Amino acid sequence: MCPPNCLHSICENASRRGLLKAGFGIGLAAVSAGLGLQPARAAAPAQEHRFSKVHDLTHTLFEGFPTFSGEKWFTVEKPVTWEKDKVNLHRWTLMEHTGTHMDAPLHFSENGMSVDMIDIADLVVPLAVIDIRERAASDPDAALTPDDIKAWEAVNGPLPEGCCVAMNSGWHALLDSPKFTGRDAEGKNHTPGFHAETAEFLIKERSVKGIAVDTLSLDRGLASSGDFPVHYQWLGSGRWGVEAIAGLDDLPAKGAMLVVAGPKVRGATGGPSRIIALV
Amino acid sequence: MCPPNCLHSICENASRRGLLKAGFGIGLAAVSAGLGLQPARAAAPAQEHRFSKVHDLTHTLFEGFPTFSGEKWFTVEKPVTWEKDKVNLHRWTLMEHTGTHMDAPLHFSENGMSVDMIDIADLVVPLAVIDIRERAASDPDAALTPDDIKAWEAVNGPLPEGCCVAMNSGWHALLDSPKFTGRDAEGKNHTPGFHAETAEFLIKERSVKGIAVDTLSLDRGLASSGDFPVHYQWLGSGRWGVEAIAGLDDLPAKGAMLVVAGPKVRGATGGPSRIIALV
Ligand SMILES: [Zn+2]
Ligand SMILES: [Zn+2]
Repeated sequence: MCPPNCLHSICENASRRGLLKAGFGIGLAAVSAGLGLQPARAAAPAQEHRFSKVHDLTHTLFEGFPTFSGEKWFTVEKPVTWEKDKVNLHRWTLMEHTGTHMDAPLHFSENGMSVDMIDIADLVVPLAVIDIRERAASDPDAALTPDDIKAWEAVNGPLPEGCCVAMNSGWHALLDSPKFTGRDAEGKNHTPGFHAETAEFLIKERSVKGIAVDTLSLDRGLASSGDFPVHYQWLGSGRWGVEAIAGLDDLPAKGAMLVVAGPKVRGATGGPSRIIALV
Repeated sequence: MCPPNCLHSICENASRRGLLKAGFGIGLAAVSAGLGLQPARAAAPAQEHRFSKVHDLTHTLFEGFPTFSGEKWFTVEKPVTWEKDKVNLHRWTLMEHTGTHMDAPLHFSENGMSVDMIDIADLVVPLAVIDIRERAASDPDAALTPDDIKAWEAVNGPLPEGCCVAMNSGWHALLDSPKFTGRDAEGKNHTPGFHAETAEFLIKERSVKGIAVDTLSLDRGLASSGDFPVHYQWLGSGRWGVEAIAGLDDLPAKGAMLVVAGPKVRGATGGPSRIIALV
């Protein structure tokens, strides 16, 4: 697998993959069974999906895009320019978790899957949009709770098998506002997110492949500023997440297919992704 | 639009966009009319598409992934590790045109669209796969010609409206071989690609939004080592390209929908993309 000029990080990841296939595979298989990652490939009669409209759920990334820590996480240089070279070609330096991006299990686990290890079939899934905009507008520390899931199901029926559950807190519309991070004087963020009990509920009692938020953290800002309970539990279970998703207002609560076009980079813990909905 | 800590490149791009909307817009509108970029949005009755299987057409990117020039164009650092921080988070430094990636018009034009300016509806299009594997196997300088297009149409009917035409030269299977770049003693590459006459034919006589190749260049390697005629003509016309596409062997010649999930980065001339086919 490794190319001739292989560097350490590659071998390390190759080994890790070897590990996953061998000893650690037992744990992974157990996780996958609960998660439905393998079943997607084994599914007998392929289900047909239909769409006639494509929605872009991706914020444009730029130097200065807000980050959870407040650090600058994306830089562009222009070593090749039209003026000089009659070609344009830029260099980017970025931390993986910038802009609209995905979190792979490896982000918050020791041996979880990196982005490139997730089967593409597990990244094209039915989308359930949970609208908590009204509550979040008056409380930036609002949590998406198990009751919110049950209220959605009372209207729309059971969560679709292997779906992604997305939180629409309205934060995607606040990108240009200090409210997007909600950073206070103590450096703690105030943004809505999944409650730890919701992560546990979805893992144990539903079949959900991923969760998405229109904020910078799957956890609520306050929790993220502390112990990241949802990150550890959700990603640690082998599931993926999407952060800083956009455009949720234009989608139905149920019926869209989500395409999480994450970066297929060896060993990536996540990275800027093109997020698309097919309706 | 510009954030408080705005840098020059952003303002420059913002101005360029302003320019496109104003004076330069006439040129853009003309290009779009020929190209069908606008019509996609204006189309009256939305066409329904169906799929039951998702194919990943993306090579995994790694340090040492072959590049056209032979330079190293992708580097990963690991500033945040599980051992040290109980979180994994990497930093990437990359030139935009590395791995399986897209070329935006701006790559080979002065004022063309950057990736973020292309409507998502113009990146989800019908795919026509032209198989030149047999010819390319005996001639690494083989060209995809207008006759290849006509031969495809004789079997499959007219190219679908607004499609992407992809060259399957078999090179996607050579990633681990020196043949992938085919670099000779003089530093010139030998890889199949579109003939300049084919670019002209597709622009003038068909409705095609993008072209894709399973090599590192839309042009043949020899031409790319020189004057890049297809890059200048095709991208210069406002159309996009995909390079180093994978997995074409598994697709039908006709009937798949291609999803070009390019990086939504302000001002990007291209970049690593997740390329997917829905069949
Ligand atoms: Zn993240
Ligand atoms: Zn390129």
